[in-house]
Amino acid sequence: MKTIGILGGGQLGRMFIQNALNYPYNIHILDPDREAPCAGIAHEFWVGKLTDFETVYQFGKTVDVLTIEIENVNVDALDRLVAEGKTVYPQPHIIRLIQDKRAQKLFLKRLQIPTADFVLIDSPEALPAHAEFLPAFQKLAVGGYDGKGVKRLHTSADFAQAFTEPSLLEKAVDMRTEIAVMVARNPSGEIAVYPAVEMVFDHALNLIDYQCAPYMLQPHEQATVEGIARKIVENLDFVGVLAIEFFVTKEGEFLVNEMAPRPHNSGHQTIEGNICSQFDQHLRAIMDLPLGSTASRGYALMYNLIGEEDGTVVYVGLEAVLGRQGVYLHLYGKTHTRIGRKMGHITLIADTMAELEESLA
Amino acid sequence: MKTIGILGGGQLGRMFIQNALNYPYNIHILDPDREAPCAGIAHEFWVGKLTDFETVYQFGKTVDVLTIEIENVNVDALDRLVAEGKTVYPQPHIIRLIQDKRAQKLFLKRLQIPTADFVLIDSPEALPAHAEFLPAFQKLAVGGYDGKGVKRLHTSADFAQAFTEPSLLEKAVDMRTEIAVMVARNPSGEIAVYPAVEMVFDHALNLIDYQCAPYMLQPHEQATVEGIARKIVENLDFVGVLAIEFFVTKEGEFLVNEMAPRPHNSGHQTIEGNICSQFDQHLRAIMDLPLGSTASRGYALMYNLIGEEDGTVVYVGLEAVLGRQGVYLHLYGKTHTRIGRKMGHITLIADTMAELEESLA
Repeated sequence: MKTIGILGGGQLGRMFIQNALNYPYNIHILDPDREAPCAGIAHEFWVGKLTDFETVYQFGKTVDVLTIEIENVNVDALDRLVAEGKTVYPQPHIIRLIQDKRAQKLFLKRLQIPTADFVLIDSPEALPAHAEFLPAFQKLAVGGYDGKGVKRLHTSADFAQAFTEPSLLEKAVDMRTEIAVMVARNPSGEIAVYPAVEMVFDHALNLIDYQCAPYMLQPHEQATVEGIARKIVENLDFVGVLAIEFFVTKEGEFLVNEMAPRPHNSGHQTIEGNICSQFDQHLRAIMDLPLGSTASRGYALMYNLIGEEDGTVVYVGLEAVLGRQGVYLHLYGKTHTRIGRKMGHITLIADTMAELEESLA
Repeated sequence: MKTIGILGGGQLGRMFIQNALNYPYNIHILDPDREAPCAGIAHEFWVGKLTDFETVYQFGKTVDVLTIEIENVNVDALDRLVAEGKTVYPQPHIIRLIQDKRAQKLFLKRLQIPTADFVLIDSPEALPAHAEFLPAFQKLAVGGYDGKGVKRLHTSADFAQAFTEPSLLEKAVDMRTEIAVMVARNPSGEIAVYPAVEMVFDHALNLIDYQCAPYMLQPHEQATVEGIARKIVENLDFVGVLAIEFFVTKEGEFLVNEMAPRPHNSGHQTIEGNICSQFDQHLRAIMDLPLGSTASRGYALMYNLIGEEDGTVVYVGLEAVLGRQGVYLHLYGKTHTRIGRKMGHITLIADTMAELEESLA
């Protein structure tokens, strides 16, 4: 029986395992937290640092196929494993690219894929020269995650509070909305693109508040978005599931914002809302199995359950939530919560958008 | 965090856990086989005999809510646990009733629920007096499972090969087909009935070959079937999910064949084919949560994957299966197979019955 190793044992790994139990594979997890959501449900659970070369290398050597559920891992160890013949998906060069937001932007520019205007900032001294670029978002080159590592700079007065590490300054876009598209590719080159999902942000926490799928695109818009998704995965020789987030401008342009080379929060509604979930698709892709259908099964709305205070977790209102028809609860098994921490999500499905909106009222 | 204990750690427990991971509960399992499908994925896994009073009693004392995934358990221990205030669903009197096929038939008769004609047989000497009852099925009062404990008696010559233990003789029915209906009830008295599923048997192994849902019933037939399901769970004060199997006669009568007080093979297609799966529904019922919607999401066909020989398990044709659209694979993680052993199942979904039949071709 083949073993899949995952770097990271959070909720993405947990939902991956829930589905992977249907297949003839063992799942091994490496995570620094012995109480991570995957602890106790993986066939093997290793406690260790994801950024440590030796830890990642030793873990990787014991599995047949290695994948990730978080980008912040030691890529040098992955390079070594690949050099020794190990299968690592997505490939190390992709993870390295996506770890660095500046490299990601330069990659998009090189492929002539529309993305918001930007300048690279190496040090705080370089900022004042770009006052005309404001309002803008300053994004740290590395280490940003879940809304962290991003600052909005309104006027040049904000330069005093800017990040001092290498970053990029991205021109604020006049947005109609934000969407995400999941795309999968397997080693045989088969590609499957999911219908777009619209994301509605909670701007206080800079986290997705809720998201709705499918987001209806005109045929030419669909062609644009799908074309971009295919161009990216083909160019990267990508294997696995890739989440691509887009800004949709008031003028109707689709600008790639960011990418995540793995199952992603913006694809959680695929569990009940699409024939093949993002977790099943990722497994099929990395194991070189035929990809599943990305077709929607009606409409789906996904709502993140976010920690409201620090401490031991308490769930309130479980019965009220489950009393609604077509509601699916997904808690991540985290024993401790803190403000803004993703504790779970709820998916709501309906046959029509109108029904979905009715359920929300 | 509350703990749910399950007596039995087979595939039903495994699929229960896959869904239960979405809830804030710990799942503990008791099973005699340390390589059972639930081993390694339960929060606690106890190895011990399900028919041993002390084992079941000690296990039950450590959990908040106790349930089953197999009927062949020590019910005296459950009685003791209930007497001491423990929550056990389905309740011990129901498990005791269903362990005994004769008691089950007498119960149906008492409620005037249609069922095939039968006579109770206490010893082999009693058989010849019922030659006029043939052709008939002889069913062992206790211990039958997965098609075992049932013999077809064609003529009185077959009496020589009949079971010698206490049994019942059930008149063979001139059948149009067989269907099953899952019904759930929670302690608050809420009841939810699933659409019927049609079962197509493999008569060689006496196991379901494949099943199709929903099986379309006329409104008056739906009312009959649903009325029977409600009558049974209300009369038993049932809590949990109950599978009711029916013979549909050539005359269009619905005769209750057997019942199983738990998620059941005949409900596997509810995972992808209905809004709330039988496993989610059982969890909701025993935890006194609101029941989920039983509505169908299109059409679903479920096919059992049965062991073809004895030995270490080998899966053949995985890629061909997954290459079909709308196919879901569920393997049960059994390391050894034998002829006729349930190793997994496949569910196929489609929007229409015609599409489903097309996929089958």
